Amino acid sequence: MDVCITPSKRYEGLFLVATTDFFYPLCEDPYLQGQVACANVLSDMYAQGITNIDNVLMILGVSDQMPPDERFIATHLMMKGFADLVHYAGGKVTGGQTIINSWPILGGCAKSIGKECDFIRPDQGLAGDVLILTKPLGTQPAAFMRDWSKVPCKWERAAPHLTLKELDRAFKVACASMARLNLNAAILMHKYKAHSGTDITGFGLMGDSNKLAHETADKVELIFHTLPIIKDMAKLDKPFPFFKLLKGFAPETSGALLIMIPAENADAFCRELEEMDGWPCFQVGHAIKRTTGDKNFARIVENPTIIEV
Amino acid sequence: MDVCITPSKRYEGLFLVATTDFFYPLCEDPYLQGQVACANVLSDMYAQGITNIDNVLMILGVSDQMPPDERFIATHLMMKGFADLVHYAGGKVTGGQTIINSWPILGGCAKSIGKECDFIRPDQGLAGDVLILTKPLGTQPAAFMRDWSKVPCKWERAAPHLTLKELDRAFKVACASMARLNLNAAILMHKYKAHSGTDITGFGLMGDSNKLAHETADKVELIFHTLPIIKDMAKLDKPFPFFKLLKGFAPETSGALLIMIPAENADAFCRELEEMDGWPCFQVGHAIKRTTGDKNFARIVENPTIIEV
Repeated sequence: MDVCITPSKRYEGLFLVATTDFFYPLCEDPYLQGQVACANVLSDMYAQGITNIDNVLMILGVSDQMPPDERFIATHLMMKGFADLVHYAGGKVTGGQTIINSWPILGGCAKSIGKECDFIRPDQGLAGDVLILTKPLGTQPAAFMRDWSKVPCKWERAAPHLTLKELDRAFKVACASMARLNLNAAILMHKYKAHSGTDITGFGLMGDSNKLAHETADKVELIFHTLPIIKDMAKLDKPFPFFKLLKGFAPETSGALLIMIPAENADAFCRELEEMDGWPCFQVGHAIKRTTGDKNFARIVENPTIIEV
Repeated sequence: MDVCITPSKRYEGLFLVATTDFFYPLCEDPYLQGQVACANVLSDMYAQGITNIDNVLMILGVSDQMPPDERFIATHLMMKGFADLVHYAGGKVTGGQTIINSWPILGGCAKSIGKECDFIRPDQGLAGDVLILTKPLGTQPAAFMRDWSKVPCKWERAAPHLTLKELDRAFKVACASMARLNLNAAILMHKYKAHSGTDITGFGLMGDSNKLAHETADKVELIFHTLPIIKDMAKLDKPFPFFKLLKGFAPETSGALLIMIPAENADAFCRELEEMDGWPCFQVGHAIKRTTGDKNFARIVENPTIIEV
């Protein structure tokens, strides 16, 4: 859980909710990259059901390795993409910090003033809950292969398994998915009384769902029977096992929310989110009562259903 | 003014005050560097009279150019120095983000929930105010010369003007000064009804005081008659004019607060701050009614008094 929820020392009943995140660009389109960076920062907030973003400070590293003209345009567009999406999310960029760095950096620090009722703590999941995933997995293999496709000797290794057309589609889906806010999912978490949530990040589905399981106060085992994956990325898993995508350990950038929700509300949640966002939403597993060991955990069933997206 | 003061969209009368700052290390001692980075981040808050820090997210870039052992120790100590000083300031580090980068990076994002009475807006200064500076100037030449002293062909240029002993003292004073919080100054801004303040940063005394002048609603001219400077740094100004120290344009790291305060309270403010912090505090000028032009501005008198510290 990357978000910190700090009680105000001075004003009782109020909390400061904040997160910071930044990383290196993944997309070639700087405007889109700005949006991805924003969606990635805010995702931490949305995972705790925080729908109100008061402000965001932007964190920017401008590369001294780029030609000045290119740098100027790229930086301008990245900042615009970031700020536009913050605005769309109902917040505003009110400052930040920029450094000159060898590699470009983009991210921010998002903040919200809230009361207990404004957020959904990550420990409230229950055995019997359905697990919902709001985005498909597979952003890492898509971005990785995109890099390979530009280097002939590397692409040689991938070409027997993936056409350029397939890669192109997968990369576009990944970018659009990464740039999509988890805002509506957070709104619906309140409406459909979700018990808890996390976002899927660099730790991958298993890393983050294990963390969520550990946080959960109830004795639970999180079982995944379904993995939604960006089309054509799953078939890379055998020739390139280092992705660990089907094992659930491939890192995701600006990934899905994983939500624990009462079973009776799961259908309605997914239906309404699909209507609002125009993207599919997935029921990927459920929480059962843990009967072994002394620690909650998550696992994927032996032959999970793969849904290609 | 690097701080943003954002009204809560949801809770009337409440504001979210936040700032973010990060940069590359200046001191050789990583623990001290952590403290400098913290004092530098919080200084933005203190300049607006904010004495209550609710939490800080740490921003860290770990260098991939350092040997692993060295990196481990340096990173650990930097983080500890940072967190210890946040703790001393009454806040806590509740998260952050770390990346691997070619150069090390250290800083953070500080936040506070406040009401209007908790902060001092930067536009309230008045003609007749005294200008107070809470730390001496000259951190940049001290750090710069420290780097030069390690490269024989560079130090050759400096040696006729500065002994190694003088440099050593200046650098130690600079580090101690940079690691000192402006917290007590912020507390006293409220006690002695200061009108406004800013912190002295990478824009130097003139850059930041011009910004403060522009923010000031009253028609004012900020006149500096005194420049407190770390001992032996002023004499570098003639042989190395690029520092622009005596012109007021040398960048400062974790610099002073510059405070506009009613003349009758200036002595008491300085006396009490000196008692609390054990460092001298300086009355460096005053604000007069602006009679020319259409924009407030700051300037240094022709032959300012230099106080060596």
